[in-house]
Amino acid sequence: MSIKATIAVHGGAGSMSYFINEEHRQRYLRGLVEAVNAGLEASRRGNALDMVVDAVSIMEFDGSYDAGKGSVLDLYGEVEQDAGVMWGKDLSVGAVASVRHVINAIKLARIVMEKTDHVLIVGEGAEELAKHFGLWVPSIELINEAKINRYNSLIKNLGSRYRKNVDLAKELGFMDTVGAVAIDKDGNLAAATSTGGTILKWPGRVGDSPLPGAGYWAENGVCAVSATGIGEFIIRAMASFRVATLVKGGVKISEAVKQVVNYVTELFGPGNIGLIAIDSRGNVASAFNTEVMGRAWSQEGLGKVIVAHYPGDPFP
Amino acid sequence: MSIKATIAVHGGAGSMSYFINEEHRQRYLRGLVEAVNAGLEASRRGNALDMVVDAVSIMEFDGSYDAGKGSVLDLYGEVEQDAGVMWGKDLSVGAVASVRHVINAIKLARIVMEKTDHVLIVGEGAEELAKHFGLWVPSIELINEAKINRYNSLIKNLGSRYRKNVDLAKELGFMDTVGAVAIDKDGNLAAATSTGGTILKWPGRVGDSPLPGAGYWAENGVCAVSATGIGEFIIRAMASFRVATLVKGGVKISEAVKQVVNYVTELFGPGNIGLIAIDSRGNVASAFNTEVMGRAWSQEGLGKVIVAHYPGDPFP
Repeated sequence: MSIKATIAVHGGAGSMSYFINEEHRQRYLRGLVEAVNAGLEASRRGNALDMVVDAVSIMEFDGSYDAGKGSVLDLYGEVEQDAGVMWGKDLSVGAVASVRHVINAIKLARIVMEKTDHVLIVGEGAEELAKHFGLWVPSIELINEAKINRYNSLIKNLGSRYRKNVDLAKELGFMDTVGAVAIDKDGNLAAATSTGGTILKWPGRVGDSPLPGAGYWAENGVCAVSATGIGEFIIRAMASFRVATLVKGGVKISEAVKQVVNYVTELFGPGNIGLIAIDSRGNVASAFNTEVMGRAWSQEGLGKVIVAHYPGDPFP
Repeated sequence: MSIKATIAVHGGAGSMSYFINEEHRQRYLRGLVEAVNAGLEASRRGNALDMVVDAVSIMEFDGSYDAGKGSVLDLYGEVEQDAGVMWGKDLSVGAVASVRHVINAIKLARIVMEKTDHVLIVGEGAEELAKHFGLWVPSIELINEAKINRYNSLIKNLGSRYRKNVDLAKELGFMDTVGAVAIDKDGNLAAATSTGGTILKWPGRVGDSPLPGAGYWAENGVCAVSATGIGEFIIRAMASFRVATLVKGGVKISEAVKQVVNYVTELFGPGNIGLIAIDSRGNVASAFNTEVMGRAWSQEGLGKVIVAHYPGDPFP
C-alpha cells in the first residue's frame, strides 16, 4: 500500500481566555496552517522527521504560541523551554529541557538525537550545545514588552499562589505547547512537541513535552502522538505511550486518543489534556478535555489544510 | 489477603570491572543489605513510600554506588544527580535532574512530589528548592580525591571520545544507579531510583532515573519497578512502564521483567539494562542483561536479607 505523506499539528489545548482578542485567535489558527504547509513542503525533500521538525519550528518562530518566541515567563521572569522529537523508524529520541537561549528548541532536540548519543540534555549543558551548533540567541530575542508587562502585573498580586502553579496556570487561561505528528511516503512515523511551559512556573520545572512516552511517542507500524495540556497530569498518565500501547493492541487511533483523554479525565478531572495522533496508515485523530484545541492537518495531494478549534469542528 | 511489607533494592547493573577490588565489591553488597534493613525499619512506622526513600537514601549516603556521595563526575568535573520516586496509590511522582548540591537527591525528589505541584524540577531550580528544605550541601561533600584523580587520568586521554559517552561508559565499566521497590502492609506500592549518571557525561545529560515510565513506575494493584543501566536505551524502551503494561495484561512479574530485558537486548544489544520489580501480592523479581547486578530483598518476618550479585544467584 502506498502512503501519502500526511501531517497534523496542534497549537495547544486550553481555554478561550488565552486569546487577547479575535485577531489573536485568527493569527493562532493561521499559524497552524503555515505549520502544516511547512511540513508538507519538507515531505518533498525529506522524511517524517523533517516534516515534524519544520512544522514545529514555524510555530516556535511565530510568537503566537507558548513555545519558542511566544514562550511565557517563569517565576524569575525567564523563558525556559522544553522540547522533544522522536523518530519512529529506530525509536531515536532527542530532547532538551529548561533551555533559555534558543528560539527553536525542537532543532536543538534534534541535535541531541543526531549529534550526541544522549536522549535528554537540560539547562546550561543544552545551551552549550546550542552554541556549538549556532542556535544560541540572547534572551532579548525571547522577551518582549508585552511579556514583561504581563509578568509585572501578575507577580504584583501573586503572594504565595506560585506554590500552586498548576492551579494558577488554569486560572490564567493557559494554552500550552505546540506539536506535530507525521508519516512520510515510506511509512516512517515521527512526533515532535515544544513548549514554554506553564506561566510563572518554578525555575527548572519540566513538563511532559520533552519526555518521551508522556509528551510524544513515535513508533513505525504503530502510531505517532503529540500531547498538550498540563504536563504534570500527562506525565503521570504516560499519555502518549498509552495511546501507542492501545493501538498496538488493535484499538483504532481515533478510539485510542479518546480512551486516553477519558482515562486522564477520570484520574485528574477535566481541562488538562489534548492529543493529536496518526497511525501507520496515515489516519489522523485528535481528542481533548479542554475548552478548545487548535489543530490542523493535510496530506500530499489534498490541496488544502483542514483547521479546527472547537470540540465540534470536523477533524480530521 | 494480608500483605507482608516487602522491599527489594538494586545497586546498579553493569560489569565486574567497576569494582576496584574484592573489598570494594563486598562493601557494595553490604550496602544493599543495609538499604533493605532501612526499608524494613521504615515499614514499621511508615508506608511503602517511606520504605523506598529510606532504602535509597542509605545507598546515596554510602559512597559505594554511582548515586549520592558516590556519584561519578561529568565532563566538567561536576557531580550531577538524577532521581525519581513514585507513589502507586495515586500515581504521584516527584523527580529532580541535573542536581549538584545535594547528597540525597531522592529526598529532594520526594519534596517535589509533596511540597510542589510539579513532577520534575531540574538544575538550579531544584537546588533552590534544596536550600528551602535544608538539603543543600557544598560540592566538597560530593567530590573527593579519588574521584578527582580518576577524572584527571581519564580526561587526559579522552580526545573527542566524549562525543560517544555511552560507549565510553561501557568501556570504563559502569555500574549505574541505585533503586528500590516496595509494598507495605496496606498493599501500597512505591518505587525510587537515584543516580550520578554516566561518567564524563555531557553536563545536563539526563538518563532514565528521574523519568517515570523509563527509570521507575509504581501503580497500586499492578506493580512497582526500578531500572538501572544505560539510561538512553531504557528511556527509548519505556522499560518500567512496559513491565507494568505486561503485568496489567496478566503476565507474571518474573516473566514481565524478563520479557522487557529481552526486548531491550533485541533492540539495542546486551549489556545495558537491569530491572527489579514487585507485584501487588509482594512477589519480587529481577532480570538483567549485564554481567552482574547487585540486588537484595527481604520482608517482614523473614528474619534475613537475601543478597545476590551474579546472574545465577538465587533471587528472590
